[in-house]
Amino acid sequence: MSGNTLGTLFCVTNFGESHGPAIGCVIDGCPPGMPLTEADIQADLDRRRPGTSRHVTQRNEPDRVEILSGVYEGQTTGTPIALLIRNTDQRSKDYHEIAQSFRPGHADYSYWQKYGIRDPRGGGRSSARLTAPTVAAGAVARKWLALHYGTQIRACMTQLGELPIPFEGWEYVPQNPFFAPVADVARYEEYMDALRKTGDSCGARIRVQATGVPVGLGEPIYDKLDADIAHAMMGLNAVKGVEIGAGFASVAQRGSTHGDALTPQGFRGNNAGGVLGGISTGQDIEVSLAIKPTSSILTPRESIDIRGHSTEVITKGRHDPCVGIRAAPIAEALLAIVLMDHALRHRAQCGDVTPPLAPIPAAAY
Amino acid sequence: MSGNTLGTLFCVTNFGESHGPAIGCVIDGCPPGMPLTEADIQADLDRRRPGTSRHVTQRNEPDRVEILSGVYEGQTTGTPIALLIRNTDQRSKDYHEIAQSFRPGHADYSYWQKYGIRDPRGGGRSSARLTAPTVAAGAVARKWLALHYGTQIRACMTQLGELPIPFEGWEYVPQNPFFAPVADVARYEEYMDALRKTGDSCGARIRVQATGVPVGLGEPIYDKLDADIAHAMMGLNAVKGVEIGAGFASVAQRGSTHGDALTPQGFRGNNAGGVLGGISTGQDIEVSLAIKPTSSILTPRESIDIRGHSTEVITKGRHDPCVGIRAAPIAEALLAIVLMDHALRHRAQCGDVTPPLAPIPAAAY
Amino acid sequence: MSGNTLGTLFCVTNFGESHGPAIGCVIDGCPPGMPLTEADIQADLDRRRPGTSRHVTQRNEPDRVEILSGVYEGQTTGTPIALLIRNTDQRSKDYHEIAQSFRPGHADYSYWQKYGIRDPRGGGRSSARLTAPTVAAGAVARKWLALHYGTQIRACMTQLGELPIPFEGWEYVPQNPFFAPVADVARYEEYMDALRKTGDSCGARIRVQATGVPVGLGEPIYDKLDADIAHAMMGLNAVKGVEIGAGFASVAQRGSTHGDALTPQGFRGNNAGGVLGGISTGQDIEVSLAIKPTSSILTPRESIDIRGHSTEVITKGRHDPCVGIRAAPIAEALLAIVLMDHALRHRAQCGDVTPPLAPIPAAAY
Amino acid sequence: MSGNTLGTLFCVTNFGESHGPAIGCVIDGCPPGMPLTEADIQADLDRRRPGTSRHVTQRNEPDRVEILSGVYEGQTTGTPIALLIRNTDQRSKDYHEIAQSFRPGHADYSYWQKYGIRDPRGGGRSSARLTAPTVAAGAVARKWLALHYGTQIRACMTQLGELPIPFEGWEYVPQNPFFAPVADVARYEEYMDALRKTGDSCGARIRVQATGVPVGLGEPIYDKLDADIAHAMMGLNAVKGVEIGAGFASVAQRGSTHGDALTPQGFRGNNAGGVLGGISTGQDIEVSLAIKPTSSILTPRESIDIRGHSTEVITKGRHDPCVGIRAAPIAEALLAIVLMDHALRHRAQCGDVTPPLAPIPAAAY
Repeated sequence: MSGNTLGTLFCVTNFGESHGPAIGCVIDGCPPGMPLTEADIQADLDRRRPGTSRHVTQRNEPDRVEILSGVYEGQTTGTPIALLIRNTDQRSKDYHEIAQSFRPGHADYSYWQKYGIRDPRGGGRSSARLTAPTVAAGAVARKWLALHYGTQIRACMTQLGELPIPFEGWEYVPQNPFFAPVADVARYEEYMDALRKTGDSCGARIRVQATGVPVGLGEPIYDKLDADIAHAMMGLNAVKGVEIGAGFASVAQRGSTHGDALTPQGFRGNNAGGVLGGISTGQDIEVSLAIKPTSSILTPRESIDIRGHSTEVITKGRHDPCVGIRAAPIAEALLAIVLMDHALRHRAQCGDVTPPLAPIPAAAY
Repeated sequence: MSGNTLGTLFCVTNFGESHGPAIGCVIDGCPPGMPLTEADIQADLDRRRPGTSRHVTQRNEPDRVEILSGVYEGQTTGTPIALLIRNTDQRSKDYHEIAQSFRPGHADYSYWQKYGIRDPRGGGRSSARLTAPTVAAGAVARKWLALHYGTQIRACMTQLGELPIPFEGWEYVPQNPFFAPVADVARYEEYMDALRKTGDSCGARIRVQATGVPVGLGEPIYDKLDADIAHAMMGLNAVKGVEIGAGFASVAQRGSTHGDALTPQGFRGNNAGGVLGGISTGQDIEVSLAIKPTSSILTPRESIDIRGHSTEVITKGRHDPCVGIRAAPIAEALLAIVLMDHALRHRAQCGDVTPPLAPIPAAAY
Repeated sequence: MSGNTLGTLFCVTNFGESHGPAIGCVIDGCPPGMPLTEADIQADLDRRRPGTSRHVTQRNEPDRVEILSGVYEGQTTGTPIALLIRNTDQRSKDYHEIAQSFRPGHADYSYWQKYGIRDPRGGGRSSARLTAPTVAAGAVARKWLALHYGTQIRACMTQLGELPIPFEGWEYVPQNPFFAPVADVARYEEYMDALRKTGDSCGARIRVQATGVPVGLGEPIYDKLDADIAHAMMGLNAVKGVEIGAGFASVAQRGSTHGDALTPQGFRGNNAGGVLGGISTGQDIEVSLAIKPTSSILTPRESIDIRGHSTEVITKGRHDPCVGIRAAPIAEALLAIVLMDHALRHRAQCGDVTPPLAPIPAAAY
Repeated sequence: MSGNTLGTLFCVTNFGESHGPAIGCVIDGCPPGMPLTEADIQADLDRRRPGTSRHVTQRNEPDRVEILSGVYEGQTTGTPIALLIRNTDQRSKDYHEIAQSFRPGHADYSYWQKYGIRDPRGGGRSSARLTAPTVAAGAVARKWLALHYGTQIRACMTQLGELPIPFEGWEYVPQNPFFAPVADVARYEEYMDALRKTGDSCGARIRVQATGVPVGLGEPIYDKLDADIAHAMMGLNAVKGVEIGAGFASVAQRGSTHGDALTPQGFRGNNAGGVLGGISTGQDIEVSLAIKPTSSILTPRESIDIRGHSTEVITKGRHDPCVGIRAAPIAEALLAIVLMDHALRHRAQCGDVTPPLAPIPAAAY
């Protein structure tokens, strides 16, 4: 199978390197007849874009998307939708020395050993730049899900380094550069400014939620909805952990309280995180991700060179002191793609099945 | 794609229901020429088997595996290996009432709504019984990995409910019914006995480790090794969270300490958990799972019936008060299957590549 | 991908060797809620069964199918359907000598070189016995297609060796052992009796037809309906050629006559064979196969042994002097599986699309 | 699965419409370390290019390929290779009227009914223009196969309309616009000139051959090498029939002559066409295709319009009076892609297997 394709029916094939001519994706399997324009996609790309605040990388890519195929007179045709994003602001000279050694915490060593060759410029294929095509594809999926089910997908930061971020409301998320659900982010800006001065980095915790998800999505026993969500999220650069619903807190819970009670007015809780037995219940999908601190830091690190000898590595160039700051729109895109794929898979096998019961509401409280 | 097939080159197709005539799997893509007998597989099945201690379900299934194909004169032929396990100890009458309502925390409601029909006996397809074929297939993968790379895969419990379990040594794991890496498990037995009396259940945290893993396994950017591990593990019954390496602790770390330094004598740490950029580094693969408390408990729960009306549900029959107690061998099998699949995928694309550098040892400390 | 799985949404995974304990298949992706019993499947297996006339192999296998999973209270559940057929009449001693050499025209040499090992008994995995699970799965697909679309699939022999067989009517096909659409088959029986005495074999041409096929099935540009039909048919043992519609006769036609004219009353011809641009048109699907003469013959053949030295090979044991005589039900099953898979694929992507035009009838003549 | 992806390990995802901004493909799974430049690919594209003789379509597309990713410092990196070809010579005004009706023998009707929408310009997605990306990908596969195995792939025309074309030698094929293996093509030029004047079209028969193919390629029982070849070839625009080796002539042969005898010096014939039991034998792969007469002709045809009413259709614009004239390089590319995919699949499962016997030569005569 193609390791660069996500999905089985709504398939997203991603291509490109950080400093190559272009990056992009091909979406195959999108249903026909849906209105689609570059503007639909550009909106999500702009949310992800580097250079939008002092807290993120200073590479200045416009990330203009071009639709090369699959759309005719403003509607999807059911044929593959190719999306192209030209790279314009590569500064390859920043990476000359780094080709000789391996940066700890990065993919340099593992790519070198696997392929026997690597493009070191800007991290090559392993760069977080390659999340841009994913976001572009996610915009298409998100639109279809909204039209068909009224699904809404949102993400926010719930922890920055060691600082927890309380939840005050989704309305605050677009108003600050942290995707934080709080009105006042001064505290986090100070934290980041201090961190930037040290040349070090920190991690982040991201929450992703989908509401308006129909019951019945998921293909047990191996392609369960939560399994595919975990697959997509763990595959995102820098993610080291994924939880659904109560997640790791479930370990210390009791079955009498963990299992969400059902009532005709809805579920009494959401420890399940929207998935039971690998199939969506109609409850909100709730996912949490752990993002590690960026390995591209300015402090010197002990490492080896391509001949296996000890060396010291200092990463120069433009970097995110906290890659988690831009992760929210990418996590939303990934969840959209997974839900889209499962919507089509469910329709394929169970298209004739009307749920025997009117689905109970997501929440009774 | 088939939701009941795990893997792309080493493919495991799982079939069966808890109370149907038989369960089993078909393994396609196993390399030829490997010695294989029922005994190789039975050993791992026996570790998983129900009825082996008072702390787990009292259903008494011998789980005898029969090899139906794919082996000739004691060697794999390269053709599909079908493994069959007959069900013998079904007690269907325990589930008569339960067909009328949905047990909270179980897959009853979601299966009903997705398919419009469900086999309620013993949980049908959603039963943890269907982990037996997975374990059987994992035994085949595990053997090949050991022969080819000297890979060793082990799992143990690291937390039972709210009780952390310290790590004293792998040698203790086979000596107690908890797969706990400690000499004295009296504390945990008392905890479980007390819990059983209440009719409630608790969760568990499982650690899975693979040593002797070659560098280079993983297919970025979507089929990364850690992404596929997360997919397999989150798909295991009752799992709500998956971590690789430092996992959620990474959030509060600094890049200067999280990134594992490289030296000619090996890596200085393993926050990566054995995977960087989605490709194995040669470091030990370290995975941690969160398993929720069993939803099959004896205390009454609020729910609805198949007509959508309020009802109370009491689960009778035979259950595990902590399904996590049997999870270790299943988690090992899943990791074996994922590593096996990736070994073949890597060989397919990079079979001509010798790592340019002699791989550095797993650990320098 | 699994080479032993046919289909992408309606997946049939085939296992077994000719002289192993059992053969069978696992069907994944079958829609739920369809009535299904062993009898539904046994009927098609009995049509295929060896030992039903003096013109086919004399191995006497009852081919009793057992449903192991995926059916509850007489209905499909949407979970995998495992079908098992035990081998009972193996006569392994017939193959002792043959393990030392390679039979010309058989898979012995190619399997040996590919896998480094082979099960020589009865042809092992390469035996036509492994068409039985395919037929079993085809019975399930056929039933669903009939229920959903009124699709009917039929096959007959159109040439035996060098003798063309005229088409008198489908009603004759079940009445003779040749699946020939003629009332009187004496001519063909004499031909076969004479051939059997020589110990030689002949080929056959098979026609497969599907009526009541909805418009819109097929996934261009690579998984076109005709491409997948060709894939399935060419994969059938002994097939050397596949045609759709006018087939090879198209070469000498003119575009002004080849292209089937459309009228409101239907198509004016069917040179297309039911597929245009890779998508079904609603015209009858018409396929023709070329089946080569069996390589298992009683006359000695020049070959080499497993050390590469010249030798002479005489095949003993039980064989079909014309394997084409039993091919019709297998070809039907293959067409059913391909159409089923494409029905689900079409539903997945275009489930919301109602054909803008009431589909025109298959034929206006 | 993605209907626009060919292959499972060497995956080619094709995108684009005839009159859209661009066409192209993404190749995933190409082994790293192979030298690759645009020139390698351009050579094959130029052989396929329209406008190269008076006998083919007069659309003048330069078909300049651009490598967007997957190559670094002149070598493949193992990451996806995206190839882009901009459309420059679209004349959309030729198709205004045709959007209102369906051209017989074309995909217009079936696309309309499947998707509910179609891009009518130049045939949209169903245009033979979309064979260009396939040829581009085939060039990459062809190069790797030549480097690894010395494989050579060639195709020629063996029949034009009702005129058989004898085989005089491969050296003549590049010397005439018909890809005919004869020194003097005057006869065929006259035939085509006469045909063009009538405004009608004819079919063609194409032979494709691969030499230097290793033994062991093919994944029985469903993904046999010949099955996948048939799948690829039948999927090529306008193909209505595919044969391997003796093909349909096998029907009238006897087993005593059809089965190719083996000797230490090689095979005594090649009725097999290079494949036995679905696995390559080392004999030359021999495939023959039937290409139907183009449906785009200048004579009026009876049809219906998009409201289902009778109408007459005349196709204007630029067309091939015999699409088979350009099919040879495309058939070569398809065979290259299939062989490449199987080479990787074989390496994945059997990478440790050395054929037990030194493979016998392709031919002993």
